[in-house]
Amino acid sequence: MTNPRHNTRDIYPPTGPEKTAKTWGAEAAMRMLMNNLHPDVAENPHELVVYGGIGRAARTWNDFDRIVASLKDLGPEETLIVQSGKPIAVIRTHADAPRVLIANSNLVPHWANWQHFNELDRKGLMMYGQMTAGSWIYIGTQGIVQGTYETFAEAGRQHYNGDLTGKWILTGGLGGMGGAQPLAAVFAGACCLAVEVDETRIDFRIRTRYLDAKAKTLDEALAMIANWTAKGEAKSVGLLGNAAEVFPEIYARMKAGGMRPDIVTDQTSAHDPLHGYCPAGWTVGEWRAKQETDPTAVESAARASMKQHVAAMVDFWNADVPTLDYGNNIRQVAQDEGLDNAFAFPGFVPAYIRPLFCKGIGPFRWCALSGDPEDIRKTDAAMKKLFPENHHLHRWLDMAAERIAFQGLPARICWIGLGDRHRAGLMFNEMVASGELKAPIVIGRDHLDSGSVASPNRETEAMKDGSDAVSDWPLLNALMNTASGATWVSLHHGGGVGMGFSQHSGVVIVADGTPEAAKRLERVLWNDPASGVWRHADAGYDIALDCAREHGLRLPGILGN
Amino acid sequence: MTNPRHNTRDIYPPTGPEKTAKTWGAEAAMRMLMNNLHPDVAENPHELVVYGGIGRAARTWNDFDRIVASLKDLGPEETLIVQSGKPIAVIRTHADAPRVLIANSNLVPHWANWQHFNELDRKGLMMYGQMTAGSWIYIGTQGIVQGTYETFAEAGRQHYNGDLTGKWILTGGLGGMGGAQPLAAVFAGACCLAVEVDETRIDFRIRTRYLDAKAKTLDEALAMIANWTAKGEAKSVGLLGNAAEVFPEIYARMKAGGMRPDIVTDQTSAHDPLHGYCPAGWTVGEWRAKQETDPTAVESAARASMKQHVAAMVDFWNADVPTLDYGNNIRQVAQDEGLDNAFAFPGFVPAYIRPLFCKGIGPFRWCALSGDPEDIRKTDAAMKKLFPENHHLHRWLDMAAERIAFQGLPARICWIGLGDRHRAGLMFNEMVASGELKAPIVIGRDHLDSGSVASPNRETEAMKDGSDAVSDWPLLNALMNTASGATWVSLHHGGGVGMGFSQHSGVVIVADGTPEAAKRLERVLWNDPASGVWRHADAGYDIALDCAREHGLRLPGILGN
Ligand SMILES: NC(=O)c1ccc[n+]([C@@H]2O[C@H](COP(=O)([O-])OP(=O)(O)OC[C@H]3O[C@@H](n4cnc5c(N)ncnc54)[C@H](O)[C@@H]3O)[C@@H](O)[C@H]2O)c1
Ligand SMILES: NC(=O)c1ccc[n+]([C@@H]2O[C@H](COP(=O)([O-])OP(=O)(O)OC[C@H]3O[C@@H](n4cnc5c(N)ncnc54)[C@H](O)[C@@H]3O)[C@@H](O)[C@H]2O)c1
Repeated sequence: MTNPRHNTRDIYPPTGPEKTAKTWGAEAAMRMLMNNLHPDVAENPHELVVYGGIGRAARTWNDFDRIVASLKDLGPEETLIVQSGKPIAVIRTHADAPRVLIANSNLVPHWANWQHFNELDRKGLMMYGQMTAGSWIYIGTQGIVQGTYETFAEAGRQHYNGDLTGKWILTGGLGGMGGAQPLAAVFAGACCLAVEVDETRIDFRIRTRYLDAKAKTLDEALAMIANWTAKGEAKSVGLLGNAAEVFPEIYARMKAGGMRPDIVTDQTSAHDPLHGYCPAGWTVGEWRAKQETDPTAVESAARASMKQHVAAMVDFWNADVPTLDYGNNIRQVAQDEGLDNAFAFPGFVPAYIRPLFCKGIGPFRWCALSGDPEDIRKTDAAMKKLFPENHHLHRWLDMAAERIAFQGLPARICWIGLGDRHRAGLMFNEMVASGELKAPIVIGRDHLDSGSVASPNRETEAMKDGSDAVSDWPLLNALMNTASGATWVSLHHGGGVGMGFSQHSGVVIVADGTPEAAKRLERVLWNDPASGVWRHADAGYDIALDCAREHGLRLPGILGN
Repeated sequence: MTNPRHNTRDIYPPTGPEKTAKTWGAEAAMRMLMNNLHPDVAENPHELVVYGGIGRAARTWNDFDRIVASLKDLGPEETLIVQSGKPIAVIRTHADAPRVLIANSNLVPHWANWQHFNELDRKGLMMYGQMTAGSWIYIGTQGIVQGTYETFAEAGRQHYNGDLTGKWILTGGLGGMGGAQPLAAVFAGACCLAVEVDETRIDFRIRTRYLDAKAKTLDEALAMIANWTAKGEAKSVGLLGNAAEVFPEIYARMKAGGMRPDIVTDQTSAHDPLHGYCPAGWTVGEWRAKQETDPTAVESAARASMKQHVAAMVDFWNADVPTLDYGNNIRQVAQDEGLDNAFAFPGFVPAYIRPLFCKGIGPFRWCALSGDPEDIRKTDAAMKKLFPENHHLHRWLDMAAERIAFQGLPARICWIGLGDRHRAGLMFNEMVASGELKAPIVIGRDHLDSGSVASPNRETEAMKDGSDAVSDWPLLNALMNTASGATWVSLHHGGGVGMGFSQHSGVVIVADGTPEAAKRLERVLWNDPASGVWRHADAGYDIALDCAREHGLRLPGILGN
C-alpha cells in the first residue's frame, strides 16, 4: 500500500493577477494552502508537514487534491467545510460568509491527549493542524521573527537596560519557529547559541541567512560566542547537539567559572514528546525510525530528557540568569516527570507579551498573491506613511526588508493592534483597487494573538483573574470572525503546547479591491483585535480597560455600556 | 453581601405580536431567555437554574438584566457576544449574521473537570450551560417523552416491522426521566411493564396520566399485559417491585414457556449506586435510612443487585429479546462487579438513535412567540398536511396534543431530519407572513442532535470508525450555522454527561415572516441536519451515505463529488 501522506510532488502556488477559482476568496485559500507546502516554506512538504512537529496543511495528498479541486469550483455563495485536513462538504451560505470553515485536531477533553490523538491519526481520522499549518496562513520563519525579536528586546530592556551588546542567548531548536531565534537575537543586538540535534536544520537556517555559523562541538561554539561578544558583534551559531545534554554541560562549566549565558530559553518541539523532541544520546536516524517501530520507547526517553533539560534551565534561573519558557510546554512535561520546581521560571507571555495583547496588538501579517516582492515593498512603504509616528514599526520594517528572505509568496508581519489593523487592511484594499498592487493581498494572523487563544501554559498563563483555562474566548473569536465576514476561519486544539493544553482560532481575510471586501475588512480587522481587548479587560487588566474606553467599545458586562 | 445568583423575581416572557427590541431576532432571543426562567419551565428559576443539575440561563441576575437591555437595544447589523452567561460585547456584523453568539462552560481540555470548573464558577468567572439552558431553547419535559418515544419506535421498526401492536416493553424505574417510559411506549403503540420499587412514584405517574395501572404482584401485572396485548391495546402498568428480582423471575418464567417481553431496558438511577438504586430484598424505608447510617452497605448491596439485574438483561439479549442500556451506566457497574459480558447488549444511541442521526433526524422543536397555544395547534395541523405520509409524525402530534401540557411559551417537538426541517421552517415563515400565526415562530433543537455533539459515553458511543471523541464536528456545526445565518448559535462543553465528557453546539432561528428570514431558514435548516449526515457518512454508516447521495450533498472527501 502506498502511504497516503507521502508524495514526491513539489507544490508551488500560482501567482499573478489571474485567478483560476471563481472567487478571490477561494483562490486565496488555495494559494495559501499551496504556499504552506511550498518547498521554501514547509519543513517537510512531501509529508504535508508545514512546521511545529507534525503540523500539517492537509490530512493526505488525496485530501489536498480534493481541497484544491473544491476551491476551484467553489461558488461565490458557497463554503467548503474542512475537518482535520479533509474536505467534508460544500454547502450553500452567502457572499458575506467565509469561503472555508476549518476545525483541526479537536478532541473531547477527557480524550484530549497525544495517545488518543495518535491512535486516530494512525487510523487516518485526524490531522494535527498546529496553529497556522492547518489553517493555511503560515508564512515561513518570518512569522515568528518579530515576536521573538520583541521578546528578546523586552528582556534586554528589563534585565540589561535595553542594551544587549556583548550579551548572548542560549537556546535549543532551529525548526520552523525556533529557526527565527538567531536572527531575532541579532536584530535585538545579542549573540545566540542555538543547540540543534538535526544538522539539516542548521544548514537550512544558514542557507536562508537566519543563522551565521555552524559548530560541531561545544568548545567551538563557545569560542565563537566569546570572540563575538568580546568584539560587540551580534552573531549566531548553531551547535549540532542535544539540548538535554548541552544545557547541563554549559551550566556545569559556568559553575566551574566558564561562560555565563545572559538569557536562556528553548524552542525544541517539546509539546510533542513523540515527534518533537530527540532523546539524549539518540541519533536523529534512530529517533525517526523508532517513532514508527517503538513509539512508547521514544516518548518515555524524550520525556526523561526533557526533565534533564528543564532542570538545567531551573539551575540557570536560580543562578539569576533570566530564563524563560518559549511556549513549547516543556515545563509541564518536566513537572509530570517529577521535577517539582519545573515552573520556577516564567513563560514569555506573562513576562513580556501580555501588555501588548491588552491593546489587541499581536502578529498581524499579510501576503502578496501576485508573488511579486515589489508588492510587499510597496506595502512596507505605505505602512510607514500610514503610521508616521510609529518609529518602532519603521525600524522593524527596515530591518526586515534588509535581512529577511521571503519564503514562498512574499509576506510581511508586524505587530499592530486595535484601531490600526483595519486601517492597514483598508489601505491595502485601496492599493489593490487602484492597481498599485498587482494582485489581491491576503491578511491574517497567528493563532497566538490576543483574543484567539486559551493556553494556560503559554498565552494565558497566570491571567490576573485566574481565567487561564477558560476557552469560551477563542470559540467566540471564531464565531465572531465568521459572523463578521472573514474569508476563512479555523478552530484548532493542541497548537504550540500540544494535545490537551490549548484551544485557538485563526482568521484570514482577502483584500481583493472591491467595496464589499472593504466592508468585511473593516468589520473583521476591528472585531478580531477588539476581542483580545475584551478578553483582557474582562480579566481586569487596566491597559485593556483603558484601551476599550479609548476606542469606544460597547462592553455591557464589563463597562456597563 | 447579596448573592448575585439569587433573586425572588418571577420572570415571564412578553408575548404577542408587538416587539420591544429592534429586531425579531433580538426579541426572540430575549423572550426565549426569559422563557427558560419561566416558573413553569425552570426547575429553580430564582437561582437562574433551568434544568439538569446547575444548568443556568445567565451567570448572575445582573448579567440577565444586562443581556435583556443589550438585546432590546441591539441594531439589525449588530451581534451580542455572551461568554458563560455574561454579556461581553456588542459588535458590528451584518443583517445575515446571528444576533447572538454564545460560548458556555468551555475549558481547555487538561483543566476540563468539575473541580476546576467549580473553582471558576465560585469566582464568578463561569456558568454551567448544560445543553439548552445556557443557549435559551429549553421547552420543559416534552422533550423526554419524545426522545423515549423515538427510541421505542425505532426499536419497533428494527425488530417488529414498525408495528408494536400487541408487543410489550419491560423496564425499570419511574423517576424524573424514567417516568416518561410508559407514556412513550403507549405513544409508540406498545404496552409497558415498568418495575418500580417506590409506590409513591407509581401513584404520581398515574395521577399525571403517564401510567395507566398499578400492580402489586407479577402475576397481576402479567395478566394485564396478556389481556392488553391480546386485544392490541397500548397500555401501561407499574409493578411495585425490585427490578433486580423481577427481571430474573420474568426470564425464568419465559424459559419455562411463560410470557416473553418484546423489548427490555431500564431507567433506574444506576449511575448513582448510593442514592439511585434500591438493593434487592430491601424496603424503600430501609434503603433511604441506610443511605445516611450505612452508605457503604447500601452501595455494595446495590452494586451486587445491579449485577443480578444486568445478568438477567444479558439473558434476555442472549435469548434474542432486543435489550438496551438507556444511558444509566448500569452495564459498567455490573462489569465492575465481575459480570464479564455486561456490555453484551448495546446502548440506546448506537442501537436505535444512530440510524436516525444518519439521516439528520433529531429533536427539532419550535415555539410560538405569540404565547398562544392556538398557534401551536395550527402548526401541528400544518405539519400533518406538509408530511401526509409520515404516519409516525401524525401519531406523535395527535398524542402530544392530547396528553402533553404546555410549559411556558407553547412549543412542539418532533424528530425530523434532512430535507424536512427546512420545509417546516419555510412553511412556518409563510404562516407568520400571512397572519395565520399571531407572531413569529422560533425554531431550534437540542444539542443532542445528529451533527452537533461529540460525547463518547452517549451520543457518539461506539462510532463505526472509532471517532467517538473527535469534536471537530460540533465546532464545524457552530461555525457553519453562524455562516448560514442562524439567529443565535452556541458552543458548550460538558452538557448531559458532565465536565470533560462532551462538546456540543446549539442553533436557533426565527421565522418572522420576511423573505430574508426565508432565505436564512432554508440554508440553516438544510445545512444543520446535513452536518449530521456528513458526520455519520464520514464514519462509514451506509444509511448516512445513502441519505447523502439521495439528497445530492456535495461531499468531496467522502463521496468524491
Ligand atoms: N511561544 C511561541 O511563540 C512559539 C512560537 C513558535 C513555536 N513555539 C513552540 O516552540 C517549539 C518549536 O517549534 P518549531 O516550529 O520550531 O518546531 P520544529 O519541530 O519545526 O522544530 C523543533 C526543532 O527542535 C529540534 N530538536 C528536537 N529535539 C531536540 C533536542 N533534544 N535538542 C536539540 N534540538 C532538538 C528538532 O530537530 C527541530 O529542528 C514548538 O513546541 C512550538 O509549539 C512557540
Ligand atoms: N441517556 C439518556 O438520554 C438518559 C435520559 C434520561 C435518564 N437517563 C438515566 O436514566 C436514569 C433514570 O433517570 P431519572 O431521572 O428517572 O432518575 P430518578 O432517580 O428520578 O428515578 C429512578 C427511579 O428508579 C427507582 N428504582 C431505584 N432502584 C430500583 C430498583 N432496584 N428496582 C426498581 N426501581 C428502582 C427509584 O425509586 C426511582 O423512582 C438515570 O441514571 C439517568 O442518568 C439517561
